[in-house]
Amino acid sequence: MTLLTQTIASILPPDNEAAWAADARLNSLTKPVGSLGYLEELVRHYAAIRHNESVKSGPGAIAVFVADHGVADEGVSAFPQAVTAEMLRNIAHGGAAISVLARRFGYSLKVVDVGVKIDTSTKPLAGVTYRRVGAGTRNFLDGPAMSPAETTRALEVGIEIARELSDSGATLIGIGEMGIANSTPAAALLCALTGLAPDAIVGRGTGLDDAGVRRKIEVVSRALEIHRVALASCQSMLAALGGFEIAAMAGMCLGGAAIKVPVVVDGFIATAAAAVAEKIHPGLFDHLFFSHRSAEGGHALALEHFKLRPILDLDLRLGEGTGAALAMNLIESALDLLSSMATFESAEVSGKLR
Amino acid sequence: MTLLTQTIASILPPDNEAAWAADARLNSLTKPVGSLGYLEELVRHYAAIRHNESVKSGPGAIAVFVADHGVADEGVSAFPQAVTAEMLRNIAHGGAAISVLARRFGYSLKVVDVGVKIDTSTKPLAGVTYRRVGAGTRNFLDGPAMSPAETTRALEVGIEIARELSDSGATLIGIGEMGIANSTPAAALLCALTGLAPDAIVGRGTGLDDAGVRRKIEVVSRALEIHRVALASCQSMLAALGGFEIAAMAGMCLGGAAIKVPVVVDGFIATAAAAVAEKIHPGLFDHLFFSHRSAEGGHALALEHFKLRPILDLDLRLGEGTGAALAMNLIESALDLLSSMATFESAEVSGKLR
Repeated sequence: MTLLTQTIASILPPDNEAAWAADARLNSLTKPVGSLGYLEELVRHYAAIRHNESVKSGPGAIAVFVADHGVADEGVSAFPQAVTAEMLRNIAHGGAAISVLARRFGYSLKVVDVGVKIDTSTKPLAGVTYRRVGAGTRNFLDGPAMSPAETTRALEVGIEIARELSDSGATLIGIGEMGIANSTPAAALLCALTGLAPDAIVGRGTGLDDAGVRRKIEVVSRALEIHRVALASCQSMLAALGGFEIAAMAGMCLGGAAIKVPVVVDGFIATAAAAVAEKIHPGLFDHLFFSHRSAEGGHALALEHFKLRPILDLDLRLGEGTGAALAMNLIESALDLLSSMATFESAEVSGKLR
Repeated sequence: MTLLTQTIASILPPDNEAAWAADARLNSLTKPVGSLGYLEELVRHYAAIRHNESVKSGPGAIAVFVADHGVADEGVSAFPQAVTAEMLRNIAHGGAAISVLARRFGYSLKVVDVGVKIDTSTKPLAGVTYRRVGAGTRNFLDGPAMSPAETTRALEVGIEIARELSDSGATLIGIGEMGIANSTPAAALLCALTGLAPDAIVGRGTGLDDAGVRRKIEVVSRALEIHRVALASCQSMLAALGGFEIAAMAGMCLGGAAIKVPVVVDGFIATAAAAVAEKIHPGLFDHLFFSHRSAEGGHALALEHFKLRPILDLDLRLGEGTGAALAMNLIESALDLLSSMATFESAEVSGKLR
């Protein structure tokens, strides 16, 4: 059995009894019942995913998957492709937004080169984990972005990273990405998975003008047509549309669920990856947290389609796991409240009148 | 000139030039322009309030004002009045939700007894600052909740606490409250200040049943009728409806604005206090952050009425400053991004193509 099939086979549904037990504990704390609102739901959800009612906030980790995309050749990004490698270095060196947030919150930051076009692995950058599946995907207008073997490998990279971070102690993992043009394959995947139209889903990415957005919609529409047959199965869909970092994030979602470590999904592109994972293993969404409603394209529509409630709504559209990091801190705050607040009994506070 | 009139006279409008300068700095950072969304607006807003473009996240503080309310006699709360004193102790001893969050985020916690019915000042509780204006307000169905002198004094307590926290280094202050029955005067104030009807504004507080909510709506409606004449001026309105902690939070909003320290407003009751401060000094809202959309009663409607965008939307309805603390951490995260991210130049990242 391969790592992928073995991982999928070992996923158990979330444990509702752990959620109920955590809820009983919440109701004993010195606050009106339910008054912590959605934070209480985060606690119950976390307990269910962990199969553990006495949950505590533990070490958090962020995994950022970085890769390039052949479809960048179609002029679908406002930035040149070289920026992927430049940002790989910037994230690892501490200068990117996610670097700042990971430092602030004390989260370990795993930066994974899963297929950047410019290969820096021969003179490895400090702070980068190299799991290169290729030197960028192929342009999906010329054929499948990834081969079946590359697709499986990229999924397995995500599973491996989930295991490694868990082995290092992480009990909550945020996923994010960087890759010039990657909102194009993400949009194509979200269209294929939701049935929503390209003009409802495609966004400005890093800052396309109106003409650029029209071109991007056209590119996504053509891809969906070219690969119509491949869209019938989830792995061939993923292979057809790409990319390496999207597949790795999907693998991370599956891998986290298999080892009962909650994965916190970032924005538009990470949501596309999570939706692929849900397609591979229906019910997988129940093992995940959705960090925020992104301002990118039809992210809000996609969340609505999947009936997912994001934790934050801050018009972020940066990626890298920035929204995930911010939401993880809220999840951990909720867990701290669960484990550290006094109970009515311990604090000798009077209960409700009626 | 009294402390109150002197404070109001010294409030300058926020500095738009500082906001623009902060914005220019944001646009030099390694991210697509505007991609940090509302976090960027928080940075600009903070810079404008501080009159300083090179803003950094500094020590944060939370002030929790605790007081009792005569109107509790009307059966408008699901909990007995003794809980105010019990929670004063619990907050100061570290067991309440706000105690846990302040500890988590490293915020100093100022717990102020501004008029709890049970007087503990003779055997002072550790961690409580005593600025008692009285032993709870009067029942506002029997006359004004507070005298004019008490009203001024409670406002000045808030101003004093703002100054003291700023003198201790705080550059961001969250305000919250505890006081059995205080969502009743808060609802009455919000009705008077927005023109919205009691049945649109009144909520369940700590957990009233339907009959309790009907009684609370009736109590608020009667108060608005009894005090109709007093509602014409903001200070007589505040005196008529109460309470001490609401007046103190209003004073804190004014006091923070005067010394250029941003105040982060918690939920339903703190919003009523901020609205009183805005009525006292129109434009004051521009010096504040609104932390979250509460699930209590018509908080969402009130925010909409005042055209205020809250930072979080988590169905919280606990008070104590819990929403403020969570939002402060987001404001500070935004400031960290401003001061710690690399620029395109420093990180040698290529710019936009067109």
